[in-house]
Amino acid sequence: MSEAFSQLNEQFAAISRLSQAAALLGWDQQTQMPSGAASARGEQMAALQQVIHEKSTSEEIGELLMECEEEFANEDPDSADVRILRTARRNYDRSVKLPISLVVELARHGAVSHEAWVHSREDNDFQSFAPYLEKMFDLTRRKAECLGYISHIYDPLLDEYEPGMTHAETSAIFTEIKSDLVELAHSIANSTMKMDTSCIHGIFPVSVQQDLTLKTAQAIGFDTTRGRQDAATHPFCTSFSRDDVRITTRFDADFLAMALYATLHEAGHALYEQGSPPEFEETPLAGGISLGIHESQSRFWENIIGRSRSFARWIFPQLQQYFPASFSGRVSEEFYRAVNQVQPSTIRVEADEVTYNLHILLRFELECALLEGSLKVRDLPEAWNQKMQDYLGISPPNDSQGCLQDIHWAEGLIGYFPTYSIGNLLSGQIRQAMLIDLPGMEDMIEKGDFSPLLEWLRKHIHCYAGKYLPGELIPLATGSPLSSKPYMNYLREKYTELYQL
Amino acid sequence: MSEAFSQLNEQFAAISRLSQAAALLGWDQQTQMPSGAASARGEQMAALQQVIHEKSTSEEIGELLMECEEEFANEDPDSADVRILRTARRNYDRSVKLPISLVVELARHGAVSHEAWVHSREDNDFQSFAPYLEKMFDLTRRKAECLGYISHIYDPLLDEYEPGMTHAETSAIFTEIKSDLVELAHSIANSTMKMDTSCIHGIFPVSVQQDLTLKTAQAIGFDTTRGRQDAATHPFCTSFSRDDVRITTRFDADFLAMALYATLHEAGHALYEQGSPPEFEETPLAGGISLGIHESQSRFWENIIGRSRSFARWIFPQLQQYFPASFSGRVSEEFYRAVNQVQPSTIRVEADEVTYNLHILLRFELECALLEGSLKVRDLPEAWNQKMQDYLGISPPNDSQGCLQDIHWAEGLIGYFPTYSIGNLLSGQIRQAMLIDLPGMEDMIEKGDFSPLLEWLRKHIHCYAGKYLPGELIPLATGSPLSSKPYMNYLREKYTELYQL
Repeated sequence: MSEAFSQLNEQFAAISRLSQAAALLGWDQQTQMPSGAASARGEQMAALQQVIHEKSTSEEIGELLMECEEEFANEDPDSADVRILRTARRNYDRSVKLPISLVVELARHGAVSHEAWVHSREDNDFQSFAPYLEKMFDLTRRKAECLGYISHIYDPLLDEYEPGMTHAETSAIFTEIKSDLVELAHSIANSTMKMDTSCIHGIFPVSVQQDLTLKTAQAIGFDTTRGRQDAATHPFCTSFSRDDVRITTRFDADFLAMALYATLHEAGHALYEQGSPPEFEETPLAGGISLGIHESQSRFWENIIGRSRSFARWIFPQLQQYFPASFSGRVSEEFYRAVNQVQPSTIRVEADEVTYNLHILLRFELECALLEGSLKVRDLPEAWNQKMQDYLGISPPNDSQGCLQDIHWAEGLIGYFPTYSIGNLLSGQIRQAMLIDLPGMEDMIEKGDFSPLLEWLRKHIHCYAGKYLPGELIPLATGSPLSSKPYMNYLREKYTELYQL
Repeated sequence: MSEAFSQLNEQFAAISRLSQAAALLGWDQQTQMPSGAASARGEQMAALQQVIHEKSTSEEIGELLMECEEEFANEDPDSADVRILRTARRNYDRSVKLPISLVVELARHGAVSHEAWVHSREDNDFQSFAPYLEKMFDLTRRKAECLGYISHIYDPLLDEYEPGMTHAETSAIFTEIKSDLVELAHSIANSTMKMDTSCIHGIFPVSVQQDLTLKTAQAIGFDTTRGRQDAATHPFCTSFSRDDVRITTRFDADFLAMALYATLHEAGHALYEQGSPPEFEETPLAGGISLGIHESQSRFWENIIGRSRSFARWIFPQLQQYFPASFSGRVSEEFYRAVNQVQPSTIRVEADEVTYNLHILLRFELECALLEGSLKVRDLPEAWNQKMQDYLGISPPNDSQGCLQDIHWAEGLIGYFPTYSIGNLLSGQIRQAMLIDLPGMEDMIEKGDFSPLLEWLRKHIHCYAGKYLPGELIPLATGSPLSSKPYMNYLREKYTELYQL
């Protein structure tokens, strides 16, 4: 290894370690921190982000990058070292465009605005949160302008979460699936078949759920010597190295599906992070490549696997053991049907597979309108409720269950939502490819032998970590570029049978 | 505020925020982190410490300091600004004397040596730990030489934890109390009176203890909107601003006194940190001034208050409610006597009020001898056991319960132990001063009205945070310089009555 490349890698390692520390500040804020500490935490985050930004945009890195790029010009473009350089160049070019003052202001406002969101959601008081959200969109517009764009202000924002993806491509995908989804949801609504969900509503003590969900996460491969699970208002997964990957779950003592599926979802993210190759640690290639690829992992485990008939058969005896009052005298098919009810609802994270992407479409359209300025923050609740009517035919009873439900915008995660739909579509492609490679897949699931599935993901996706951009990785892993067809076929097939359409 | 002073304060704020982030990494490591993450956490800590050291010793700070010192030369020496400069100068002059290579080597060896200590303590194998301890003392000698000293190599080490305190003063204090303590312990051992401790040994479910101890901490004033309590192997208190002060407690399901008194102790530290004035936040004056002053707070609540008869009367009805099997049919005096048993024991953290300082004296004498070279590391076990015989009349059954029991030396905390005794003595001075100002103090405690006591501490100690050095603060708060008399009188009076000496 040349002296310059070795120096560069040391810089990346330092940046990576400091970024891991910053991620811990975030995890702690959502799971442990006393409420009075919000403002101090904002300052700590900002100070650390400033150091990270300074280090990431240092002249030294710029010079080392140029030197190494020259040196590696004739190397195999597919080698890890060349990929490290490519990713580092991408990151560097993005970072140097952002003035440090803006980075600090975004970090600081994110913490304060998060706290304001928590209170306004509790109090169902959107107007107390509106000024914070307005400032967040102002700051985000400034960020987009600094990063620059050719066709749409949304492009540089989305690119942060889904490298290479654009507003135009996203719009095209939604156009492709929108009418089919609305139509499928409509057919289901008109079906005489109704799902009986009584078995998943009842009394489910949180401590018992904690035990069940952790065991389920471990069953699909979550390594708790390198991770942990906690309760949080908004379930998430975060990592501070491949050896410290943490998931959070929301527990509802009356409704079993909440925590169980949140756990499968977050554990899906966690498996991707825990599967990042050790040799990529502390390089720009460590961890997941994009949020869309990440979401394909979480949705794969949550829905494709977790809401399959085989999974219901596997977990059912355990449910009977954990919650005899709810499950004794029942059969697994009742659980299977209960967790696959399709019904328009106000809360995105509780949405079924059919309506979920319509929740995302709504958010995508609204954040675009807020960025473009065609929608004012103060008018957001009304616009939200109107779109809920248009796409799902329902209205939230209040803003807490409407435009205040998600944490994302409060924290400055704008341009983020479409990655959820990308992940959903990709989970269908993964299912299609896996069914070919693992013809006995359904039997494996029914026996609780999830390791061949995890191995497939490790081999086709996790092992690459950040080496390939999503546009390169998807064909490599599934045999074709991002496509909505496998997912839409999966939905049609599954729900035609379930609802006898 | 001048431009230079405002720039300087910005630097201090950044250093302070990064140090708070580093402290969170430490808290998380001891309370939440999965075991597989130890190595990654070490790297994260080191990366953050390096940034903090670089910032703390930057030329920019050196120049701004000089500029401001000139500018403030004629200001009131007691103003907060001048005190900020004085403390900053002290910190800066110390930091720049330490080469970064030594700082890094001490940090690295601290981690390795800590690991070696854990294993050698488990295996009761001092000789496998000896080479690590030898190197730690070598590095510490180098550190002391870099920092410089006039009369004793111990001075610059102790000065890190107890600014302004010297080896000579510490020796003088121990000379003052040593024979009295040995004599008091001896009289108690010869007394026919024995304490019945059966009520605090029994079955105390951890979840019930968690509830009781948190409520007790809150009762004495611990603000849980700006703090929290968790379980940890080694109880400690840490803070990431005055608004996020966290304590940990060790729960023993068979022995109530462990968690209850650990909580009172750590909550005492926490009250000091939560009482640091908001206007000092993110300046070098924020938080406690020294470990000795800190320990005076923890020992005041743990012993002076927590082991008083009035406290026993206040908490007893609650104990009866929480643990009826252990306390129904008993009276508060039985609890009072049980938690005040005096008995020489091998373990410092379990020692009673009378023998505790003898444990510290032993460590102080041994670490001085090791630094001076008059004692070799390989001979430490023998020297330890001899002193245990001399001072306490007992011998540890093995090195794990002897010279391997404490974490301090393994981690490089050398020159630290005397602060425990300083804190003990000072808690007696505080008691004396408080009894004059609050003649109804005992009644207040018995009624659970701890707020006048906390207010006294806020007014005489907490409000100054780091503004005065211990040598300035102690007379200001208690009316006289550090003295062993009030504490020794308190011990004699209390135990003469209890043991009918």
